[in-house]
Amino acid sequence: MSLNFCFIGAGNLATHLSKAFQNKGFGISQVYSRTELSAKELAEKLSVSYVTSAEEVDLNADIYFVALKDSAVDEVLPQINFGNKLIVHCSGSLPLSALGKYSENIGVFYPLQTFSKSLDVDFKEIPVFIESNSAKNEKILLQLALEISDSVTVLDSDKRKTLHISAVFACNFVNYFYSVAAEILKSKDIPFDVLKPLIVETARKVQEMHPEKAQTGPAVRFDENIINAHLQELNNFGEFRQLYKSISKSIFEHYNK
Amino acid sequence: MSLNFCFIGAGNLATHLSKAFQNKGFGISQVYSRTELSAKELAEKLSVSYVTSAEEVDLNADIYFVALKDSAVDEVLPQINFGNKLIVHCSGSLPLSALGKYSENIGVFYPLQTFSKSLDVDFKEIPVFIESNSAKNEKILLQLALEISDSVTVLDSDKRKTLHISAVFACNFVNYFYSVAAEILKSKDIPFDVLKPLIVETARKVQEMHPEKAQTGPAVRFDENIINAHLQELNNFGEFRQLYKSISKSIFEHYNK
Repeated sequence: MSLNFCFIGAGNLATHLSKAFQNKGFGISQVYSRTELSAKELAEKLSVSYVTSAEEVDLNADIYFVALKDSAVDEVLPQINFGNKLIVHCSGSLPLSALGKYSENIGVFYPLQTFSKSLDVDFKEIPVFIESNSAKNEKILLQLALEISDSVTVLDSDKRKTLHISAVFACNFVNYFYSVAAEILKSKDIPFDVLKPLIVETARKVQEMHPEKAQTGPAVRFDENIINAHLQELNNFGEFRQLYKSISKSIFEHYNK
Repeated sequence: MSLNFCFIGAGNLATHLSKAFQNKGFGISQVYSRTELSAKELAEKLSVSYVTSAEEVDLNADIYFVALKDSAVDEVLPQINFGNKLIVHCSGSLPLSALGKYSENIGVFYPLQTFSKSLDVDFKEIPVFIESNSAKNEKILLQLALEISDSVTVLDSDKRKTLHISAVFACNFVNYFYSVAAEILKSKDIPFDVLKPLIVETARKVQEMHPEKAQTGPAVRFDENIINAHLQELNNFGEFRQLYKSISKSIFEHYNK
């Protein structure tokens, strides 16, 4: 396929997805972002041009990848005359239908991963979930996705939203707890490094066994002595103390219902 | 060192620690557990004898490793006449002093890892934290720990407790959120497998960058549309909805203070 893509958005996801496509020989015609710094940074990585005004978006691209914050979609897209070009958004939560007013050819291309600009990822291993409004468009997206990933699934908007929620727990909240742990350690001058093998092992375990079976720690054992000692110790961390309490309770109830 | 160890307790930690010592040529004289099934299972793995009555614990061992639930320590140890043998507990939260009434030679040997009986671990990579009541005992524990681990640190009881709390967040609560994610997915017949690459990458990222910098997702972006849509969707998961709400709030406040 010799196709030209325009990227609407230049954040973490746009950065990794556009690079993955470019590496496979697809053309990136242009990058748009309202934030000049982001637009310029990504355009330089791809050696393409960028614009910060929606009116200047290249109307000759074959496919438009929309990688914006959900709430920005309806601010940016009305300013662009897509004709009936294929527009694809990359959001976990936005339904396919959100693009219906902008083109007759619409789709979703959702890579399930956490992206940070400075860390490379191997796109081959990232599960991609696609959806479209026609068999023809679905076939295009399926072919595109298979060019960069070994795991491609057609998934409807409702299930994709559920998937996204589960990812918030398994990734965003998990990473936040790494931060919480780091902050607690810092209060006693213990380096975060000591937790790294534990963090890797915790993730590795559930590659082989279901997390239900992998649960360890004072809450699942209902070791009240430890839980109370920890709560006492967390008196200086009001908010973390509350999280500790409610999650311990939730774990205990989960394993004793 | 030609030493004989007796293991008081036969849970996940006792299983992996006793095997690691045995693999390095140390003798395990006996396994004690109040639960016959656990005692028998570990004793068979080690090809040693076991007892389920504290009165029958082998009094000729050189060192006693106490790997019991914290609350069981003061139930079991008073029944054993240790003389002045070296007694070592393996708990993150129990202070060294908790062993003071049972012997003049006491210590702590705390491997920071999540252990499940059925999954092998490479002890070399597990950070071990030790503490003791004398320079002589500390030296013994240091040498022992270095036989099985490449990362050994002397750490006092107060700091070890803080370390343990941080591990509850970075491991136990994290694993619970993997379970929560699995349960949410199951409600729409989506297999847990789809999350595995995300879980591995989330853990891998913080090996290279601080979790503060690695945070992604709707809460840190304060994407209210998504957060509200997720809360709506979680109406059928009352307890998870509450967790979603309080953690999102905590993340938002953390990044906007």
